[in-house]
Amino acid sequence: MPRTTNAPIVSVDGDRLMASLMNLARIGEIDGGGCARLALTEEDRAGRDLVLGWMHELGLEVTVDVIGNVIGTWNVGVGAPVMTGSHIDTVRTGGKYDGNLGVLAGLEVIRTCQQAGLVPTRPLAVAFFTNEEGSRFAPDMMGSLVYAGGMSTETALDVVGIDGARVGDELERIGYNGASPCPGIAPHAFVELHIEQGPVLEQEGITIGAVTGVQGISWRELVLRGQSNHAGTTPMSLRRDPGYVAAEVTAFLRRLAREMGGHQVCTVGRVEFHPNLVNVVPASVAMTLDVRNTDEALLVAAENAITAEVERLCAAEHVEASWRRLTRFEPVVFDRAVIDLVAGVAREQGHSVMELPSGAGHDAQMIARMCPTAMIFVQSHRGISHNPAEHTDRDDLIAGADVLLHVMLRLAGLDPSGNRASGDSDGTTR
Amino acid sequence: MPRTTNAPIVSVDGDRLMASLMNLARIGEIDGGGCARLALTEEDRAGRDLVLGWMHELGLEVTVDVIGNVIGTWNVGVGAPVMTGSHIDTVRTGGKYDGNLGVLAGLEVIRTCQQAGLVPTRPLAVAFFTNEEGSRFAPDMMGSLVYAGGMSTETALDVVGIDGARVGDELERIGYNGASPCPGIAPHAFVELHIEQGPVLEQEGITIGAVTGVQGISWRELVLRGQSNHAGTTPMSLRRDPGYVAAEVTAFLRRLAREMGGHQVCTVGRVEFHPNLVNVVPASVAMTLDVRNTDEALLVAAENAITAEVERLCAAEHVEASWRRLTRFEPVVFDRAVIDLVAGVAREQGHSVMELPSGAGHDAQMIARMCPTAMIFVQSHRGISHNPAEHTDRDDLIAGADVLLHVMLRLAGLDPSGNRASGDSDGTTR
Repeated sequence: MPRTTNAPIVSVDGDRLMASLMNLARIGEIDGGGCARLALTEEDRAGRDLVLGWMHELGLEVTVDVIGNVIGTWNVGVGAPVMTGSHIDTVRTGGKYDGNLGVLAGLEVIRTCQQAGLVPTRPLAVAFFTNEEGSRFAPDMMGSLVYAGGMSTETALDVVGIDGARVGDELERIGYNGASPCPGIAPHAFVELHIEQGPVLEQEGITIGAVTGVQGISWRELVLRGQSNHAGTTPMSLRRDPGYVAAEVTAFLRRLAREMGGHQVCTVGRVEFHPNLVNVVPASVAMTLDVRNTDEALLVAAENAITAEVERLCAAEHVEASWRRLTRFEPVVFDRAVIDLVAGVAREQGHSVMELPSGAGHDAQMIARMCPTAMIFVQSHRGISHNPAEHTDRDDLIAGADVLLHVMLRLAGLDPSGNRASGDSDGTTR
Repeated sequence: MPRTTNAPIVSVDGDRLMASLMNLARIGEIDGGGCARLALTEEDRAGRDLVLGWMHELGLEVTVDVIGNVIGTWNVGVGAPVMTGSHIDTVRTGGKYDGNLGVLAGLEVIRTCQQAGLVPTRPLAVAFFTNEEGSRFAPDMMGSLVYAGGMSTETALDVVGIDGARVGDELERIGYNGASPCPGIAPHAFVELHIEQGPVLEQEGITIGAVTGVQGISWRELVLRGQSNHAGTTPMSLRRDPGYVAAEVTAFLRRLAREMGGHQVCTVGRVEFHPNLVNVVPASVAMTLDVRNTDEALLVAAENAITAEVERLCAAEHVEASWRRLTRFEPVVFDRAVIDLVAGVAREQGHSVMELPSGAGHDAQMIARMCPTAMIFVQSHRGISHNPAEHTDRDDLIAGADVLLHVMLRLAGLDPSGNRASGDSDGTTR
């Protein structure tokens, strides 16, 4: 008879998790296997109704707050809950897993506990937050931001989207203008499971990412204005070419990111020439600069270096620059104890683990203002996300959900695996 | 009593020339003082009818050929004519002078000769060629190309424009499907007066440009394909960013043009990112490369250097390049004797002169295949053209027309200024 191992004695039902993901993915389905459920549209309403129904089936106490965040809580009434969750809205060409995995894995965690007769000391809660993607209404992560008190409800309800619709009106129209106030109740702890949306875990051959925080984000638009001129008749020495300056700025961003190293990334994703004709030196070029770092001081240094280089290039070419700030978030650092718990649980379950920051924004970064928080990442095939081709292997999805299960149980005061914090990890792992 | 000067004894009527320019500019007038007379539209027909009426008023023998070129000839029947001319079609946002000046100055030359009783030995002819701009139908300079035998009439008539209309049908519709065959009769010589459409004469403070030829033109489209990825989650080392390659290509073109010097110019005028979003490393970038030189060997060398650099950059970034040839014209070298005549006449009239190549294409470069040819340039304010703000000072317009008058008279065997080729130029000049 084998001795007691440290393998988890409970684990999620992979088939059941996959079935719920596929059922939700049918709502707003688009060509190529993706989803279009823009926030507060009919498709979003249908997705919400489906998940809300599952919460009721599990006997959760469901609240809808004033910004439409939905929280289902199991075992209410014994202290602040251990919360998980994410979002079920998508971009216009979204995948099946971004956001949805975090919500449906949360429900699968509760389902698993209920079936195994495990009742943790603290309540477990699963949330889906309104308008995480920001594709229809700005800013992104709106629901979790309002939940955490980072934006007033009034301001959020008055936001007008790209189609002219108002958040408050749309919430009412789809029946998700709830009564629970914001800011909401601070959880005991928060853990979000999400696909990486980047290539690092796959590239490194690692199953579980213990997310250390979220990169700070600087988005700026730079408009360069020069002199439109005939491409044949204007000598090089007389040109004031904003397209040339834009090119040098783009090349500088690459050099800067390489020289700074670490987690510094710089991207020029949008460039628009005007009048954009083969034989005309452009009159103006608008470009965006996406600059991110996990360290605020380094992010500021990068921004300053770019601004100075743009000034230098513009002076030399007699081009005028004007800047517009699009977005600025400081880096978020997750809770060390929760990060270590994620990594520890993953290792106990036999998974390879690495710590990494998130390059994308997530609801967890907002809830991190309220309570100890971290995230669990699983691989994204080729880093592709916001795309119908987004893919994560079934085994990775299930591994992530099992790590979430046991992290939540530990945070809620129950360790059904038989492991203690001292962690004798010499046994067989699966 | 003063001795005989070498000032011209005849000169054009500046008021009359300006009035004809302003009358033609009213047809297809657009905001900002420009014109929209796209080839073979109703506006083009109205412009043609106006100029045709003026030709008839001057008693010219008018022919319309199979591609719609209109030639008015004075004093028919004594050998091949000395021809001038240009075009009266415009781009969608054209100015008042591009093309129009060359045609109306030609008519003013004949009007001046008739009123002064000067009858040169050879006929004088004024042409306006169909579809010089190429804004509606490709290629540009179509009428003069067909006139010179560089494109068959059948091919040209079958060209379909950006609006789906066919050249042959549109010629018939506006009543300019003439009977004269193409290729047309070779002139004795051809001289075209045109605004520079570049900033060189103004920058140098020179009144008259004696145009030495037309730059060879290489237009290529380069499509770069990499890997679209999330701007936050994709480490710099894993990127395959076609936007970065496009930037380095653009910077290389600038360096190359500066290093080659002379008349080498390089322009990236059109750039299109896909999907063109702030937080997405682009999947692909399409860009155009406009490369010009007056020397064919240097132009080929520039093209080859660019192709090699693109290959090197693409290999380093793991980006794929595909090329498409849009346009390729070899440089055109004008006739040395006619160039010298333009410069000599301009100096006799007291104008500052410089030789320069044309960076833009002109009908004269097509007619140069048939007979000794050159061009006369006058200043363009700030080099602005293809724009309602296109401007040339009245004095410069008139100076250009007077140089055209006397160049044509010399070519046609008459020198009413009293000057001979030996040119005693010590007298008073105006």
